[in-house]
This record gives sequence, C-alpha cells and structure tokens, in this order.
Amino acid sequence: MFVGTGREHDRRYEPPDMILDAVGGTVIPGFVDPHTHLPFAGYREGEFDRRLAGESYSQIAGSGGGIVATVAATRRATSSELLQLTLHRLDRQLLCGTTTTEAKSGYGLNLETEIKQLQVLREAGQRHPVEIVPTAMPAHEVPEEWRHDPDGYVDVVVREIYPAIAAGCLAEQVDVFCERGVFTPDQTRRLLADAKHLGWRIHLHADELCDLGGASLAAETGAAAASHLLHASHEGIAAMAQAGVIAIALPGVSFFLRDRFAPVRDLVKAGVPVAVATDCNPGSSHTESMPAVIALACLGAGLSSEEALVAATLNAAAALGRADRLGSIEVGKQADLVVLDAPSPKHLVYHFGVNLVRHVVKAGEIVVRDGALQPH
Amino acid sequence: MFVGTGREHDRRYEPPDMILDAVGGTVIPGFVDPHTHLPFAGYREGEFDRRLAGESYSQIAGSGGGIVATVAATRRATSSELLQLTLHRLDRQLLCGTTTTEAKSGYGLNLETEIKQLQVLREAGQRHPVEIVPTAMPAHEVPEEWRHDPDGYVDVVVREIYPAIAAGCLAEQVDVFCERGVFTPDQTRRLLADAKHLGWRIHLHADELCDLGGASLAAETGAAAASHLLHASHEGIAAMAQAGVIAIALPGVSFFLRDRFAPVRDLVKAGVPVAVATDCNPGSSHTESMPAVIALACLGAGLSSEEALVAATLNAAAALGRADRLGSIEVGKQADLVVLDAPSPKHLVYHFGVNLVRHVVKAGEIVVRDGALQPH
Repeated sequence: MFVGTGREHDRRYEPPDMILDAVGGTVIPGFVDPHTHLPFAGYREGEFDRRLAGESYSQIAGSGGGIVATVAATRRATSSELLQLTLHRLDRQLLCGTTTTEAKSGYGLNLETEIKQLQVLREAGQRHPVEIVPTAMPAHEVPEEWRHDPDGYVDVVVREIYPAIAAGCLAEQVDVFCERGVFTPDQTRRLLADAKHLGWRIHLHADELCDLGGASLAAETGAAAASHLLHASHEGIAAMAQAGVIAIALPGVSFFLRDRFAPVRDLVKAGVPVAVATDCNPGSSHTESMPAVIALACLGAGLSSEEALVAATLNAAAALGRADRLGSIEVGKQADLVVLDAPSPKHLVYHFGVNLVRHVVKAGEIVVRDGALQPH
Repeated sequence: MFVGTGREHDRRYEPPDMILDAVGGTVIPGFVDPHTHLPFAGYREGEFDRRLAGESYSQIAGSGGGIVATVAATRRATSSELLQLTLHRLDRQLLCGTTTTEAKSGYGLNLETEIKQLQVLREAGQRHPVEIVPTAMPAHEVPEEWRHDPDGYVDVVVREIYPAIAAGCLAEQVDVFCERGVFTPDQTRRLLADAKHLGWRIHLHADELCDLGGASLAAETGAAAASHLLHASHEGIAAMAQAGVIAIALPGVSFFLRDRFAPVRDLVKAGVPVAVATDCNPGSSHTESMPAVIALACLGAGLSSEEALVAATLNAAAALGRADRLGSIEVGKQADLVVLDAPSPKHLVYHFGVNLVRHVVKAGEIVVRDGALQPH
C-alpha cells in the first residue's frame, strides 16, 4: 500500500476511483487474532452460573459439561452446520475489526472430525474476507475413548492424524495443549518434533493451570508463540525472550473464568513480544471481539493502550508468520485497515464495551462500511 | 402490550400489519440504564495510561485532569455541540438495547451550565426514541470557584439552582455526591430535604471511596436509590433493605478504575434490590453499553446471569419510578423490547464483548432492525 498525503498520492498515481472518508476517526491496522477455536458446535452458557453457585470445573465436566460436551456436539455437526457457525463468527470478527484470524481444530480428537474442522476452515476462507490461518490441534485434549491410554492417542495423532492433515495441506501450523492431565512435556516434545518435521509453525498452550515448564518448552522446541502463560516461571519467561518466542495473552479467558491474568508486565520487561487474542471458544472465552480483549489486556492485565494495540496487530501478525505483510500501516504492506469512530486509538480502552469500528478494509477492499458488512 | 401466542392474538385483535421475526433469538425487556452523566463535553482518554504509569488521581487532577477538565469543557460547549454529543451517545445506547436512560447534569456546577445540560436533555428526549429521565445534579462536586466555601455553594444550589431547574420543569429527580472531600452527610441532608420539598425523587452517590454512612443516609432520607456502594457497611446495607432503597451497582467504574466491585452478593442476601447502570461519563466509565456492564456485574461482581438481567431491566425501572410501565414483558406494560441474536439471555454474559442486539422496539415502534438504527 501507499502511505502519505492525498497530494503525494495524486502526484505519483492515478486518482482513486473511490474515497473512504475517515474524517474525525482514527485509522489503525486491521486486528490480527492469533488464537481462536472457531469451528465448534454447541454452547456451554450454563457453566458460568454453575461455577458461581459453587460447582467446580471437574464437577461440571463429570456431569457431561466441559470440553467433552463440545467434542460431542462438534462430532455430531455436519460440515454444512459447522460452516454456517464459522461464517457467522467470522462476520462478527470482521464487524469488530479483525481482518486476519488464526483458527484451530481440536474439538474433533479423531481423524474424521479434525479433518472436517479444517476443511470447514478452508471453505470458510474461500468464502469470507477474513484471512484464516489454519492450525492443526488434534492434541487439544485426550479424547474419552483414549483416556486409558494417552500415549496410544499420541501415536494416532503422529501416525494418522498429522499425516492426513499434511497430505490435504489443511494446516500451516500446529498447537498442543501441554498441561497437567492433558499432554505431558514429553508427549508434547514428540508431537512438536513430528509437526516440525512436517514443516508446520509451532504454537503451544503453556502454563495455563500450573507451571509445567511450558514456557521453557516453547523456547526449547522453537515455537513461534506460546499462549496462556498465567503460571509461567521467571526462568521460562527468560527462555522465551532468549529464543524469540511470542507470548499470546488471552485476557478473555481470565475474565470469564474469574482467574488471574497472564503476567504481561513481566513479559514486556523481559523483552518477550506480547500479542493478545480472543481464544474464541465455547468453554472459557466465547467472544469474537479484539476490542473487548484489548480493553481486558489493559484494565485487567495491565498493558498500556499502545502496548495493547501493537499486541493486537503487529505482534499477533508476527506470531502467525505474517509480520512482513500484515500488522502495521507501512509502505509495501497489504492494506488491512480499520477506521475507528474515535479521535485516538486510546479510545479502544477508554471507550470500552461498545463497537467503535466504523469501516474495515481488507486487502484494499472495503468489507465493512458504516458498521455494516458489505456484500462479498 | 399483549403477551401470548399468535393464535391468541389474532382471536382477540386485528391481525398485525407488520411482523418482526425473532426466530432463533431471545426476546427480553428493553434495558433501563438508571445512572448516566450523558450530556458532557471533552474526553479524558489519557488518564488510564497515566494511572497505569503510577500517577495518582490527585496528581492527574492537580495537572488539570479529572472532573475539573470535564466541567471546563462542558461549560465551553455550546448547546448545539452538547446536543450532538448527547444524541450520538443515545444512538449507541439504543444500538446496545437501552430503551430508557437516566441522565444527569452535574458538569456545569453553575446555574447557566446546569440549566444548559438539562435543556439539552429535554431537546434530546424530544428528538430521540430513547426515553430520558432527567436528574438535577448541581451537587456533583464543589466547583473550583467555591472550594474556599463549600457551604456557600450549597446555598447557591438550594437558593438559585434548584429553584430555577424546578421552575423550568427540567428534572424529575435529584442526585448528590456524598463523599469525603465532596459533600458531607450534613450538606447532603440539607440538599436532599430541599429537593424532596420540590417534589423530586432522590438518588444518592454513596460510599464510593470510603464508608461515610451513605447507605444509611439513603435509607434515612427516603432515597429511591443509592449508587456505587463499594464501601457500604453491613448496617448501611441493612438500613437500605429496611427502607426499600434500590442499590445501583456500577461495575464499569470498578473495571475502568481497577477497583473493587460493589458487594452485590451481600446486597442480594440482605434483600436489597440490585440494579446495574453504565454510569456513562468521561472519567471513570466511558461506555453506553448495558450488555457490557451486565457481563461485568456477573464476571466481576458476582451476580448470576438472571440477577443481572433483572438488575438491568425491572430493578432499574423501579429505581426510576417506572416499574409499573417498564422493565418487564407483561400484559399492560409498554412494549419496550430487545431481540437478542442468541438462544438464551445467558448469552449476554457468556457471549461477552460483542453486540448481540438484533432488533429494538420502543413503545411499540421498531427503532433498531438487524443491528441498524431506523429513521426516527
């Protein structure tokens, strides 16, 4: 894209055939959401009130709630149903200013449904202006039918699911949930080594519920990014800084689960680039809104408005290997832009809770105008 | 309004000439926002980053920030500028499902500007579908020019400002900020006794920064509602329950100032009806969104989804003396309705950060359709 005054533009190029008026507004880069679980079916709206009434997560899971419920609903859903749900979420993302989003499988946990989720993402990407970065995440959880033998499931992932996803060119990165009761650091090492072999960029769910050394593991395995990090150790944070791993903070999860926030000030201080994401998913953060998580990243976690804006654009683009093309308004980059109905980007935090996105431009095309989706 | 099935309707009335399809959605009462400071000029978007960087509120106020900045900007603004700002805020409220809103003066702190704010509210109410409940609040703060003699300012309020507002029929209720460094309990008693004499409903800003006995004072003075209450004592809460004072929780303020939340569970347990409001204002809660404060009331303060919905509708209507006409979907009440793009009202909390409001009906008229304001 060209960046400069109208006069400069007209001296060097043909006059534009269309002008988008941003007077009184603020132009920022389109948001990049680097961590979502978009293609899911079923809702779990009752869990908050149950938690508030004193039930634990394991009690809820034990009565058919939790991730098991989402896996069952996603396995049951047809591709067409899943596609409609995903397109509706992409619409909401776009209305909130997101022009590029990562999206994971991981509610299939078997070959058929993991492939179904990723095929839905491919189809959605062809139909929708939001650019989708597809991530294979069969190692999101150990499925019910493999609880007696988690290593057996890791075998299935490495021998069957990953190769099938790679053969279909259905993913460009991988993510693994390394956590107590999910995948151990050793299982995670095996999964990531194999994924690396397939040429995929590596992301990691790390140190969400306890310090399992996930941050260090992300550094050790050459991950592009590690998410969550609520319990990351000082050593882990230092290792991430050393290795250049990007931290993806998910303040929507902390907000919805009434939990602590990621130690974003420690991360910034250590020199780790911090990105923010919605983690849009049906259990712990059901939101498509980057402005909402920007406000939470500041008011909850303690980023400044400027840090949060960079976290939601350039650092997020870097986490997805796209910082050369997306994430900032620079000559030569793609024109992914948001016009805010606000006099400064600080209003994303200051004027919280409402949608300030007036117009959205994706790859030079106007895709939202005056708050309304344009036909595409 | 009639409430029932289509078949019942058509047996008793003429068939409607227009049908609003809510299939797949959820119909709830229009939100009632019982505490806002809508007619203000100027923004204070820099204060959050300054607080984050370690500056105190008094340091910010000392350098020209804080409420003094808003008073100066509001005094400077023309009626026409203030009207445009107010109408724009009413648009945002309506898009977020608010069909009735309280709105205060209190950034004038002199006769001329208090009257200007309230005249702007009257004009806005004539032009806009959102129903406005105007509140006189010249006792929002002691103005700079009266800092040497706060009692002198109370005299001016009682002898000049209240009578002028009453003469113009510009308010139907009064609010006073009873707080250390603002108005003492004794000054508040005098202000409220006089307001009562003028026939106004009484609201109170109480126990926001410390326990000054504001909750008890609300009970003692026969207030309809007391707002904030972060530091309300057990005795004060018991007195409110006894006297039937409604508590208005303002979770957006707690969120934005990174402060504690009002003790909503204690209030509910004591039998005090809890309402929630945005407190839309340029210093401590710059949001027009009732869905945003509903989510904060639950995830921050600890209301259940159902309690928060009642707080944002029926209890809020009661705080404004309108529970006989607004706040619930009942035969004989006014048709103020919101259709949510969600399968249950729990999604207001569960699906946070996005605007789920699809349609809005005010007094039987469709004022928002498919997320867009209709001409009015």
